[in-house]
Amino acid sequence: MSDSRPIGVFDSGIGGLTVLKSLAHSFPDESFLYLGDTARLPYGSKSPDTIYRYSEQNIRFLISKNVKAVVIACNSASSHFHDKTLQNIPIYNVIEPGAQMAVSSTQTGKIGILGTRATVASESYVNAIKKIAPDAEVFQQACPLFVPLAEEGWDEDPITNLIAYRYVQPLLNQGIDTFVLGCTHYPILHHSISRVTGKQARLVDSGEALAQLLKDDMRTEHLQRNAKGKASLRIMTTDGSTHFNNLAQKILFPLMADEVSVVNI
Amino acid sequence: MSDSRPIGVFDSGIGGLTVLKSLAHSFPDESFLYLGDTARLPYGSKSPDTIYRYSEQNIRFLISKNVKAVVIACNSASSHFHDKTLQNIPIYNVIEPGAQMAVSSTQTGKIGILGTRATVASESYVNAIKKIAPDAEVFQQACPLFVPLAEEGWDEDPITNLIAYRYVQPLLNQGIDTFVLGCTHYPILHHSISRVTGKQARLVDSGEALAQLLKDDMRTEHLQRNAKGKASLRIMTTDGSTHFNNLAQKILFPLMADEVSVVNI
Repeated sequence: MSDSRPIGVFDSGIGGLTVLKSLAHSFPDESFLYLGDTARLPYGSKSPDTIYRYSEQNIRFLISKNVKAVVIACNSASSHFHDKTLQNIPIYNVIEPGAQMAVSSTQTGKIGILGTRATVASESYVNAIKKIAPDAEVFQQACPLFVPLAEEGWDEDPITNLIAYRYVQPLLNQGIDTFVLGCTHYPILHHSISRVTGKQARLVDSGEALAQLLKDDMRTEHLQRNAKGKASLRIMTTDGSTHFNNLAQKILFPLMADEVSVVNI
Repeated sequence: MSDSRPIGVFDSGIGGLTVLKSLAHSFPDESFLYLGDTARLPYGSKSPDTIYRYSEQNIRFLISKNVKAVVIACNSASSHFHDKTLQNIPIYNVIEPGAQMAVSSTQTGKIGILGTRATVASESYVNAIKKIAPDAEVFQQACPLFVPLAEEGWDEDPITNLIAYRYVQPLLNQGIDTFVLGCTHYPILHHSISRVTGKQARLVDSGEALAQLLKDDMRTEHLQRNAKGKASLRIMTTDGSTHFNNLAQKILFPLMADEVSVVNI
């Protein structure tokens, strides 16, 4: 069986492009349709109800574009949208794969979660990890400056190093050996965060974790591969902005989108 | 003539509370109704069309609540919403009063604008200043990290000082003697910004500038004062969030709201 329909991926903005990039790298034969809800970003500071409503609208939009699966590449949205299917289309979130990889990785049983205020407040990672490993100790830190630092392009910058140190060092002192990058923007700041953690801790990237899960689902044919036809990469945003388009190109590089458009959802 | 209806004030979030605080301080007999569109913040990263649409919705909402005037206490919205009245209700923005005060203040004729990406891209301050003082030299700097720093509560912090230095010092080297704090969040970081500018430059705060303009309009009876009745202060947001409520209290202190509610607009 083959299914040439694209895999839909959405995020509140461009952070989810780090997930898209991981997936496109892992699945070069698949087509992808990315939706960045840039008109309503960021989700991190919004209430659970609002995040749920926006997420459902985004998923319905992607389904209307004939995708075979939807990846919620936004931790805030994953924290508040738990349905596993909508209109019979499977929906993947970034929380469970990240939690699974963190549990597999830790030796000390102490896991740190770095995320937006909404992701931390939702305790989604704590709950997902406890479900797999009830004895794990989970420490959380909200890092609201990481997204704007990534969007400013200060990804190799002493100021970012200082802020990473401010957020991460107190957790490192607790004996944590595994950190979940609990926001899809954070892989952009991998360099600064890993300068703080050094060799003491591993950073879990949800794009990688999700690619692993999709591979498993394709092996068991829970999800059909695209065995024929050409792969394409389309990007849609709900708001046009030159700054974001430039940043999107920078994140995706060396990948390039076949089509970029602005949509009203 | 007396008009006891409240003055409506809106912002994308809580930044406009610095303007509300200035106004409530200058007009202790007036009632105010503040609308923080926290479900859709920030406006700074959105397109002109989206910002205009949201602004119009907010103004119509305030008019439906029977206000006698609307203050757009958001620089991004002021940059993109130029109508002076809606349904016969006068609408004030923060751009023109800030531009006027900057022109009155400068000796060197060199003015710096600090703002969000949208405010800078709109060139609203440049245009407003050039209209009054065609020979003025205007320099702009987008400071996207200032809003999250203010919202993080890092208003007296070495990291904020460093970031203020990064943004402001290059402009200071141009001989600028007047900076417009072109985002309503920025007065919260007044301390860090003034550490960089020192005695070389004055900081123009749009709340102060707007209070001056409203005073003039009350003197000429373009706007009627509230000569009788009790003044009240009501705050409405489009999204409930404990973090923002706490921050709002901190900004308004020692003022306190008589009523706080969440509304759907």
